[in-house]
Amino acid sequence: MFHKPSGASVPAGALAALRRRNAAMLLDALRLRGPLARAELARLAGLDAKTVTNLVNILLRRRLVAAAGMTESSGGRPGERLALNADGAYAIGVDLGATSLRTVLVDLTGAVRAAHRRALGRSRGAEAILGQAAESIASIRRTAGVGSKELAGIGFASPGFIDRRRGVALEAVNIPGWKDVPVAAFLARRFRLPVFLEEASRSMALGEQWLGLGRQSGDLVCLDLGFGIGAGIIAGGRLHYGACESGGEIGHTTVLDGGPKCRCGKSGCLETVASGEAIARLSGQPSAKAAAAAAQAGDRLARRVILQAGGYLGVAAANLVNLLNPSLVILNGGLCNLGPILLEPFMQSLRSHALQRSLAATTVEQSHLGDSAGALGAATLALRPYFTHEL
Amino acid sequence: MFHKPSGASVPAGALAALRRRNAAMLLDALRLRGPLARAELARLAGLDAKTVTNLVNILLRRRLVAAAGMTESSGGRPGERLALNADGAYAIGVDLGATSLRTVLVDLTGAVRAAHRRALGRSRGAEAILGQAAESIASIRRTAGVGSKELAGIGFASPGFIDRRRGVALEAVNIPGWKDVPVAAFLARRFRLPVFLEEASRSMALGEQWLGLGRQSGDLVCLDLGFGIGAGIIAGGRLHYGACESGGEIGHTTVLDGGPKCRCGKSGCLETVASGEAIARLSGQPSAKAAAAAAQAGDRLARRVILQAGGYLGVAAANLVNLLNPSLVILNGGLCNLGPILLEPFMQSLRSHALQRSLAATTVEQSHLGDSAGALGAATLALRPYFTHEL
Repeated sequence: MFHKPSGASVPAGALAALRRRNAAMLLDALRLRGPLARAELARLAGLDAKTVTNLVNILLRRRLVAAAGMTESSGGRPGERLALNADGAYAIGVDLGATSLRTVLVDLTGAVRAAHRRALGRSRGAEAILGQAAESIASIRRTAGVGSKELAGIGFASPGFIDRRRGVALEAVNIPGWKDVPVAAFLARRFRLPVFLEEASRSMALGEQWLGLGRQSGDLVCLDLGFGIGAGIIAGGRLHYGACESGGEIGHTTVLDGGPKCRCGKSGCLETVASGEAIARLSGQPSAKAAAAAAQAGDRLARRVILQAGGYLGVAAANLVNLLNPSLVILNGGLCNLGPILLEPFMQSLRSHALQRSLAATTVEQSHLGDSAGALGAATLALRPYFTHEL
Repeated sequence: MFHKPSGASVPAGALAALRRRNAAMLLDALRLRGPLARAELARLAGLDAKTVTNLVNILLRRRLVAAAGMTESSGGRPGERLALNADGAYAIGVDLGATSLRTVLVDLTGAVRAAHRRALGRSRGAEAILGQAAESIASIRRTAGVGSKELAGIGFASPGFIDRRRGVALEAVNIPGWKDVPVAAFLARRFRLPVFLEEASRSMALGEQWLGLGRQSGDLVCLDLGFGIGAGIIAGGRLHYGACESGGEIGHTTVLDGGPKCRCGKSGCLETVASGEAIARLSGQPSAKAAAAAAQAGDRLARRVILQAGGYLGVAAANLVNLLNPSLVILNGGLCNLGPILLEPFMQSLRSHALQRSLAATTVEQSHLGDSAGALGAATLALRPYFTHEL
């Protein structure tokens, strides 16, 4: 709009913000593209050589970037390549599930440096769970030999409803006693580190976006098919929260109007006929895994229940594909382990209920991160500030 | 991250971009907040006084901003207030419907300066429709006395699938002959103006975001309930497109598995039981409007059809509320004119199928823009560049 800039000045605050943004842009380029020479960095970031040199010097001093050999010369002058310094910072992610607690420690590149899983005791309440989480965090830090100074923070993935800003887990029907739990305050006091709380399915989506199948995709949905059913939605590169941050509740899609009563108070929700809990209950088996084994062994009820569950999951996923047209739908959660007996009817139902044009643009794939996706996503919450370059 | 900026410089390109962004930020503040003094502008935009003065001088010269009286003094020195100059720029919006063509001319503030509607002739094909659109544009410009120099551009809302980047309408099942139509190229050649093509339900959502109920809302869905059924989704302040830009197809939500065959090839889609077309067909009436009149007059079939349509629309809207948790759902399209006979069963169904927590955070309201929403949204496409301040 303005052809002749006439001397409008840039205030100091804007300059510092610009510099922070540019530094984050360089780190993000190194994260996504691997080792790069300064000249390539300048070109990718749209910055001049001097700016890049200055910023890189700061990043080298702060040990966030390290030298990574020389470029292969193709006639021109060979240059030094730069990469993220994996040991420049670490982050811990904790994922609270219905039956276990997973903890990972990742480095600045997102690589897993230590991981463990512990079973939750039976219904021992919030305090016991927080205690177990604290033990896991302390122990994984010891295992990896990482001090507080190098830890960027802790991310915590909780199922159910959360108050993200206050860092409080409000409620999770599948975890007895997990109600109004001040997760962030507790862990921050204990470890003197920034703590980020996120909902479990959304953490899973964050893990996929940062480290999994979603690295190249701005519009993706992660379907969390487990004891309950949830979704983490990323639209335009950003996690979608909604008005009261309850977006992603695909488990309460009505798929069988007038059907079984749901724990949410409604009836015929997807969760009442297609969750791990529902498959176990409807087939009279102790778990969805046992139902699948029974079905394989010839149990006709179990077979029918799983077939129907796959069909209903396909309808809900098709509605989502029609509505959002994501480029990528990632399947994760324990039900994926049931294999083709569930996934084949799922895909068939998805294909017959989604608009051809929309589905043709959507890749549907099982997560490569598996059970760790939620904990990894939680860990990235503490790493993201280094790389975020929106003003 | 960087406490001591050590002389990293800002390249000239970044400076010009920053200045453009700052100017757009000032215009946007005036658009959203009305007349403001320079000091208020500086505070809202986070810019220093000198920068604001320089930018305002440019905007005054370009006639995008005008003086708007003095501030009321409350002890301090009274200052001049500034406002958008309504006549600084105009834009034309065209909305192609199944039976008519609506055209509006708006000024820089979005106020409607002229509007008209013309019936489409019966199935006369793309060339005839483009000709009618061109006549409407020429005529509305004459009516309003606006020359080419002051026109920022033309926005065109087309139903069905479009290729937005090429400006080509690909297909619209409800409009015979409307297939592979180079709308933007035709109108751009004819009027020598920038032309923006957008899909109809999305245009409606843009209209609400800019000028209607959605001005304060970053997460809204506009339900377009008419001859067909569509949705325009705004998430995080941005229109949601999806992988192949077919997002928003709520009309093809499966609500009655194994139900009537849909024109999309699937069966039991929302459109087959709840669109204007379906209501007319299922009740044996010439139109949804006639079906509503018959129902009011005691026709039990028509009453049942409309009741069921409202119920199905409520299920689909509830699934959407659960999945996206929008802060605002705006109802628009011809079916809204049927009134409580449709909207009461709709709301009842929505309440019984949505999660209480999610719905409590969602306002559901009929559009105030009515039939003009699509044309207004199209017009804003040509105005948006003045106000867009993301880098």
